[in-house]
Amino acid sequence: MARATQTAGSVGVVTPGVAVFTEPLRLRSGALMPSYELAYETYGELNAARSNAVLVCHALNASHHVAGRYAGDSGSLGWWDNLVGPGKPLDTRRFFVVGVNNLGGCHGSTGPASINPATGRPWGGDFPVVTVEDWVECQARLADQLGIGRFAAVVGGSLGAMQALQWTLSFPDRVGHALVIAAAPRLSAQNIAFNEVARQAITTDPDFHDGHYYAHGVVPKRGLRVARMIGHITYLSDDAMAEKFGRVLRAGAPQFHFGVEFEIESYLRHQGDKFAEYFDANTYLRITKALDYFDPAADHGGDLTAALAQARAAFLVVSFTSDWRFSPERSRQIVRALVDNRLRVSYGEIDAPHGHDAFLMDDPRYHGLVRAYLEGIDLG
Amino acid sequence: MARATQTAGSVGVVTPGVAVFTEPLRLRSGALMPSYELAYETYGELNAARSNAVLVCHALNASHHVAGRYAGDSGSLGWWDNLVGPGKPLDTRRFFVVGVNNLGGCHGSTGPASINPATGRPWGGDFPVVTVEDWVECQARLADQLGIGRFAAVVGGSLGAMQALQWTLSFPDRVGHALVIAAAPRLSAQNIAFNEVARQAITTDPDFHDGHYYAHGVVPKRGLRVARMIGHITYLSDDAMAEKFGRVLRAGAPQFHFGVEFEIESYLRHQGDKFAEYFDANTYLRITKALDYFDPAADHGGDLTAALAQARAAFLVVSFTSDWRFSPERSRQIVRALVDNRLRVSYGEIDAPHGHDAFLMDDPRYHGLVRAYLEGIDLG
Repeated sequence: MARATQTAGSVGVVTPGVAVFTEPLRLRSGALMPSYELAYETYGELNAARSNAVLVCHALNASHHVAGRYAGDSGSLGWWDNLVGPGKPLDTRRFFVVGVNNLGGCHGSTGPASINPATGRPWGGDFPVVTVEDWVECQARLADQLGIGRFAAVVGGSLGAMQALQWTLSFPDRVGHALVIAAAPRLSAQNIAFNEVARQAITTDPDFHDGHYYAHGVVPKRGLRVARMIGHITYLSDDAMAEKFGRVLRAGAPQFHFGVEFEIESYLRHQGDKFAEYFDANTYLRITKALDYFDPAADHGGDLTAALAQARAAFLVVSFTSDWRFSPERSRQIVRALVDNRLRVSYGEIDAPHGHDAFLMDDPRYHGLVRAYLEGIDLG
Repeated sequence: MARATQTAGSVGVVTPGVAVFTEPLRLRSGALMPSYELAYETYGELNAARSNAVLVCHALNASHHVAGRYAGDSGSLGWWDNLVGPGKPLDTRRFFVVGVNNLGGCHGSTGPASINPATGRPWGGDFPVVTVEDWVECQARLADQLGIGRFAAVVGGSLGAMQALQWTLSFPDRVGHALVIAAAPRLSAQNIAFNEVARQAITTDPDFHDGHYYAHGVVPKRGLRVARMIGHITYLSDDAMAEKFGRVLRAGAPQFHFGVEFEIESYLRHQGDKFAEYFDANTYLRITKALDYFDPAADHGGDLTAALAQARAAFLVVSFTSDWRFSPERSRQIVRALVDNRLRVSYGEIDAPHGHDAFLMDDPRYHGLVRAYLEGIDLG
C-alpha cells in the first residue's frame, strides 16, 4: 500500500525557468555562440550540502519538461514523469532534479528559430551544428548558475545517455554517477543511414528553403512528417509492432486503395502529423547530426577503453533485449570498456518487448533497477 | 577449369519481346484491365516436350531483363545474370528461361505511364492496384501464348519468391518446382511500415499530383529518392553496412555541415538519385502495395498450412542469416507449412553477411545449392 502511494506521486504543477548566458561559447565545430538562453526546470530541493542534484538529459524530441504539468494544461505531462517524482525511481523527495532543453532546441532554449543577433532575423539554416560535447558544456554552465558544483548523478536514455556518458569524460570530477540507458558508444552505419534519410526528407522538402523557412512563412512539414515516421519504425521492435498492430486492416478486408489500409499505416501517419505540428525541422536536423558525430573513441583510434579512461564516475548501464536501434551488445561494449578501466559499473539487460522506446516505459524490472541504484547513492 | 568456363557463360545479346493480351483481366481489386501488354525475354530453347521452361519472377525494381545484354549497351547486364546463363546455376543450355515485366511495371509492360484507352491519356493515379495473384494470372496467360503448359520451375527472390509461391497455389498443376528465395509468407507490421513511409514520401511530394504527374511534365523525384534510400537500408544488413561503410568520414574528420560527411550518406544519396532518374513512382507505389497485400493464409484464418494445402509442387526454400527484412524464421514458417502438407521441400539457410540483398549475390554456397537443386529436376 505504501509503495502504491509512493509511485503515484507527481511533482505537480511546474514552471520552467530560463537561464541567460552572455559569455560566448565556442562550439566543437569552431562556431561561436555569442550569447544564448537555456530553458530548464527543477523538481525537489537542493540540499544544504548541494550534494543531491541530478541532471536529466533529453533525447531527440523531448525537452527540459521532464516531470509534472503546466498550470491549466492537463495534457502537458513531462516526458519522463513515470520515472521522476516523489516516491518514483528518481525520487524528488531525496534528489534535486534538473531538466534542460539543449542548445539548438525548439522548446525555449536558443535554437534555429531564435533571433541571430548578427542579423536581427531567425538563425534558420545559419544556426551552427551542435554536438553532445557542446550540450554538456552548456549543461555545466547551467549547473554553475544553479550553484551545483557536482551532480550526484547524470541520467539519460538514448541520446540523453550519450550526454550522461560524455559528462563523465568532459567533467570527471563533477559527476558522481552516470545512468546510461538504451545507449550506444557511437552510431553504426545503419543508425547514420536512418538519420540521413530523415534529413534528406526534410532538406528536399520545397518548403525547407535552406533552413530559412521562417522568413517564407512556411514549415517543411512533409519532410518532417516522413522523418518522424522513419524514426518511429526504429523506436519500436518488430515484435512490438506485430503485437500492437499486426496486419489488422482498418476496414476488415483489403480495399485496394492508397488510403489507410493497415492500422500500422494509421499509427505512423498520426505520429508524423502530430510531430510536424510542433517540432522544428532545423532542430531535428541538428539533433540527428549530434547523434552521428558522437564517438568518444574516435580520438583514441577507435579504442573505447582508452576513451573512457578519464572517467571517475560509477555507472549504471541499462539495455533492452528488443532494442534493435541500440542493441544490448552496444551497451555491453560500454560496460566492457568501463570494466577494463576498473570503474564501478552495474549492468542490467531488461527483457522488454518494446524496442528502443522501452527506456520511456514503466517496466517494473527496469524501474526497480533504477530505483535501487539511485537509493544506493550516498549523498554524503 | 571446366567449371570456370561454365560459370563465365553469358546468354549474350538479348532482345525483349512484347506480348499483347486483348482478353480483359479482372484484377483482385475488382478493377478490369481491358487489354494490356507484357514485356518479356527468353533465354535458351524450349525443348520438343515443352518440359524445360523456367519462369523467373522479379522483385521490386527489376524487370523481364534477367540475363544478357542489349546490343550496343554494355551497361545493360540483366539483374540476375550471375545466376542465369549457359553453365550457370540456372543453366540456359538445359532450361528455357522466361523473364517478364509485371503488369503495372515501368519497363515495357502496361503500367501507370501507359495510355488508358478510356481517356487517351496516361493512366497515372487511375492505374489499378495490382497484386501478386494478378501477376501470376498474367504470367500464366503469357505462358499460354508461349506454348508453355507447365513450368518445370518458377523461381524468385523476395517479392519474386512470393510469386513463385503463389504459382503453386493459383496453378498447382502448372508448376513442377518452386524456388522460394529470401521470402516471407506475408509482410510483418514493420515491413508494411517501411513501405508506407516510402509511399508517404512519394505521395506528399508536391510534384506527385495524385499520380497524374505525367500531365504536369514533372516527376516526384524527391519522394522517390527518399523511398529508395529507405529501401536500401532494409536491403543491407547492419553488419554489411558496417563492413562496407563503417563510420568512414569522406573528409577524414567531421566538417560539421549538412553535406556528405559519412560514406554511407554518399552511398544512399547516390542510390536515391540514380533510382529517381529511371523508375516510375506510380509503379513503386503499386509494387509496395502488392507486397503489403500478399498473405495466402489470410483466407484460411491465418493458417499457412491450410493455405498451402493445395500446392502440388516440390520446393527449394532459401534464406540468408543476415536478412533482417525477411529473416530465416519467416522462411522456416513456409517450410513448416509445406512439411505439414507432406510436400517435398529442401531448405537452405545460407550464412551470408549481405542482408536481404544476398539473394542477388553470387555466394558460392547459395549458388551451389540452387545449381544442385535445378540439376536434380527431372525434365521427363
